[in-house]
Amino acid sequence: MDEIFDLGPTEAVKQVSSLLGCSPTSENVSNYFDKHDKLRHLRGNFLVPKIADLPPSDLSLVDGSEECIYLSGNSLGLQPKNARKYLEEELDNWAKTGVHGHTVGSRPWAWAENNIEDLMANIVGAKMEEVALMNGLTVNLHLLMLSFYKPTQTRHKILLENKAFPSDHYTIESQIRLRGLEPQHSMLLLSPRPGEDTLRTEDILNVIEKEGDTIAVVMFGGVQFYTGQLFDMHAITKAGHRKGCFVGFDCAHAVGNVELKLHDWGVDFACWCSYKYLNSGAGGLGGAFIHEKHKDTIKPALLGWWGHDLKTRFQMTNVMELQSGVSGFRLSNQPILLVCPLQASLEVFNMTSMQALRRKSVLLTGYLEYLIKHYYTEDPAQPHKPYIRIITPSDPQQRGCQLSLSFSIPIRRVFQELERRGVACDMREPSVLRVAPTPLYNSFSDVHRFIETLGKALASSSSWT
Amino acid sequence: MDEIFDLGPTEAVKQVSSLLGCSPTSENVSNYFDKHDKLRHLRGNFLVPKIADLPPSDLSLVDGSEECIYLSGNSLGLQPKNARKYLEEELDNWAKTGVHGHTVGSRPWAWAENNIEDLMANIVGAKMEEVALMNGLTVNLHLLMLSFYKPTQTRHKILLENKAFPSDHYTIESQIRLRGLEPQHSMLLLSPRPGEDTLRTEDILNVIEKEGDTIAVVMFGGVQFYTGQLFDMHAITKAGHRKGCFVGFDCAHAVGNVELKLHDWGVDFACWCSYKYLNSGAGGLGGAFIHEKHKDTIKPALLGWWGHDLKTRFQMTNVMELQSGVSGFRLSNQPILLVCPLQASLEVFNMTSMQALRRKSVLLTGYLEYLIKHYYTEDPAQPHKPYIRIITPSDPQQRGCQLSLSFSIPIRRVFQELERRGVACDMREPSVLRVAPTPLYNSFSDVHRFIETLGKALASSSSWT
Ligand SMILES: Cc1ncc(COP(=O)(O)O)c(C=O)c1O
Ligand SMILES: Cc1ncc(COP(=O)(O)O)c(C=O)c1O
Repeated sequence: MDEIFDLGPTEAVKQVSSLLGCSPTSENVSNYFDKHDKLRHLRGNFLVPKIADLPPSDLSLVDGSEECIYLSGNSLGLQPKNARKYLEEELDNWAKTGVHGHTVGSRPWAWAENNIEDLMANIVGAKMEEVALMNGLTVNLHLLMLSFYKPTQTRHKILLENKAFPSDHYTIESQIRLRGLEPQHSMLLLSPRPGEDTLRTEDILNVIEKEGDTIAVVMFGGVQFYTGQLFDMHAITKAGHRKGCFVGFDCAHAVGNVELKLHDWGVDFACWCSYKYLNSGAGGLGGAFIHEKHKDTIKPALLGWWGHDLKTRFQMTNVMELQSGVSGFRLSNQPILLVCPLQASLEVFNMTSMQALRRKSVLLTGYLEYLIKHYYTEDPAQPHKPYIRIITPSDPQQRGCQLSLSFSIPIRRVFQELERRGVACDMREPSVLRVAPTPLYNSFSDVHRFIETLGKALASSSSWT
Repeated sequence: MDEIFDLGPTEAVKQVSSLLGCSPTSENVSNYFDKHDKLRHLRGNFLVPKIADLPPSDLSLVDGSEECIYLSGNSLGLQPKNARKYLEEELDNWAKTGVHGHTVGSRPWAWAENNIEDLMANIVGAKMEEVALMNGLTVNLHLLMLSFYKPTQTRHKILLENKAFPSDHYTIESQIRLRGLEPQHSMLLLSPRPGEDTLRTEDILNVIEKEGDTIAVVMFGGVQFYTGQLFDMHAITKAGHRKGCFVGFDCAHAVGNVELKLHDWGVDFACWCSYKYLNSGAGGLGGAFIHEKHKDTIKPALLGWWGHDLKTRFQMTNVMELQSGVSGFRLSNQPILLVCPLQASLEVFNMTSMQALRRKSVLLTGYLEYLIKHYYTEDPAQPHKPYIRIITPSDPQQRGCQLSLSFSIPIRRVFQELERRGVACDMREPSVLRVAPTPLYNSFSDVHRFIETLGKALASSSSWT
């Protein structure tokens, strides 16, 4: 019954509930999905917190020994079980061999990040030589922009979303100022249409078509952090290129979440962090991509010894032998303690494919959407009943695993009641919850339990008021 | 007999040997020093590798169960015992609470680095607000140079050593090119006098005095990585300021090694890594310093959300509230897994003071110098006997703990024989060994054992040829 995963969510729920002779909202449906989920064993590679261990849990309300309902992978991914093992291996290596660990052991520190860049490349749809693991995300975005943003008199704008992630916004602003230009003239901010929450692809493509001649760089998120909207990176890239712009993406919320084909799409550059869907731990190693077509033409503005050819790097001649492509953008040696947990996670990803994960994800998030719509669609007949509007696009092609839920009531109390009952998700006041069932370790019963708990949380918070 | 530490090394050795009635080269002298070393207990906070665990050891030659002779703290410091404990605490926190670790636990990840910046500031002689822990060293040097290097038509040069560390060299070169200038015109490289290995302070001060009007930034290492020379940072800073230059230091080899008074000296900016004398593990968190006098005037060129006031950082308004001083230079969130081992090490430093460590260091390195001179001074009467010239200045004021030894013979074989016998030090072909007894965890008997082993290594390698 694996074919169930190829149906639309509503159709899948209906088929299963009629097969089982139960209500479409029954937990039997979620159990059935889980049973037929060929990726469900992957969860076993992660440490899922127990409800009792989450600080806000109220054990008078829920069984603390159960696993929590973790829907915060868009913020911080769960710990891969091998993270500790690998870290301990390297702590042992350090304790036992000191400086020799740079060249000896199972992951010699002096090139440890290089050894997992093939695993990383698979996940973003890139060649290994197009990817570098280094620094933090904002640092990498700056390093890339220093080379890709070359404003001229006529072509000096950067196109981005009006509500880009703050760090991206500040990055772009400061890159523009660094060139002696004014953000108010050179920062082209694109907003959704009045009354709409997300950008229409046609509007993005239109503005590129219209203003493209003045745009130096188109710089979007892959998946929008707040709305969960997945942008059509391929179409945006093509549109940008048609007008002679460079096109880059901040893939923080896209990597490990949706299928990326950075190489095939011809994306010029991209960067991402690894602590969200890539589960590398808070502040984990960032990633950067530069398409191979630029490998001999786009040079780093800032140089460091890690950009020097590895073969001769330690001869210390002070004559730079710059690696081509993104590798030349490396500056500092990278921390082995960050390579370990990332390796542990990338290995789990490489037990399957982003394509397979995505297939599961479409049903998993579709199932969440189905249940929310079932219970919380606005009902004119019940004007006092709270309802939920899903900000995230309904089209699976236009979203990843996250749904952003906009409540008709202030959300703080509801959120607290959810947390007391073992749900980890994310609140943005006044009224938005971000809920991200990740295909790598979340189950269909996580989704079902979330919906059940949401019902209790709403009941409990309204009874207080 | 603690006063022995206030004598010059030769005098101290003589007094002790006559007190004990032994030869000045006897190991009894080293044992006596160790017995009276009030800091010797600090070694107990570190994991010293056993000889058997060092990959090149030959157990037919030495007792593998003994601790190795670790003299590579200038390259990679030993592991503080608490590093693993703290890492495991945070792995537990991650495993148990997931995303809640950002704000909950003993070192909430969202401001974990801030919590150890006071410990860091003590070691470099700075106020806490003058220090930021972030990124890698080369990254930080670039971020600082982007703000401090503001070349004009007449004042466009950067003064540095001719043989600066490669990454610093590349950094300066690329910073100059980024401004559209030519390294051959704007990079002022200072070499030792012909036939000399190290720079004379007078020559540094002279060139600043003579060329200062064209120099925008004076940028030196604090301690030279190759020669071990400690520059007179205070005098260089004053000289630079007299001529209107900014003065910055790469303190990679100075921090945790010598006393720094970055604030009192009026140094404009500095940066360092933490994996050498600060023992934070390969690729550990870098540090940056900007003097408080610049706090409202020197602004970061590149902005990121971590430079935003912490109190309102997560409100995500996209309106920057820039922190003043070096804090505004923060870009990305920092890895908790790098904060842990650094905290473990900084806590050990803060059990004592750099002043006390330095006092020990002068005798420890002086003792090493004494023994090398005793055994390996050039002897015209024995023309075939290998001898050693110490490149590092003999004046304790002009060096840290490292001695760079230049051998009269090719060194590779000797180095191999040292390694086979449990010595960890550093070779630079053709003929230099860098040997760094760190005051934090090395003992006087480490030094004595090194000298004994060097004798065997030389004998064994010459008997082969
Ligand atoms: C003096 C000096 N500067 C710069 C660096 C480069 O450091 P990183 O790779 O941390 O940027 C080093 C590394 O050993 C160094 O010793
Ligand atoms: C979309 C996006 N961009 C940038 C950042 C900033 O990342 P960093 O602190 O790793 O630079 C984040 C962090 O969550 C993000 O979600």
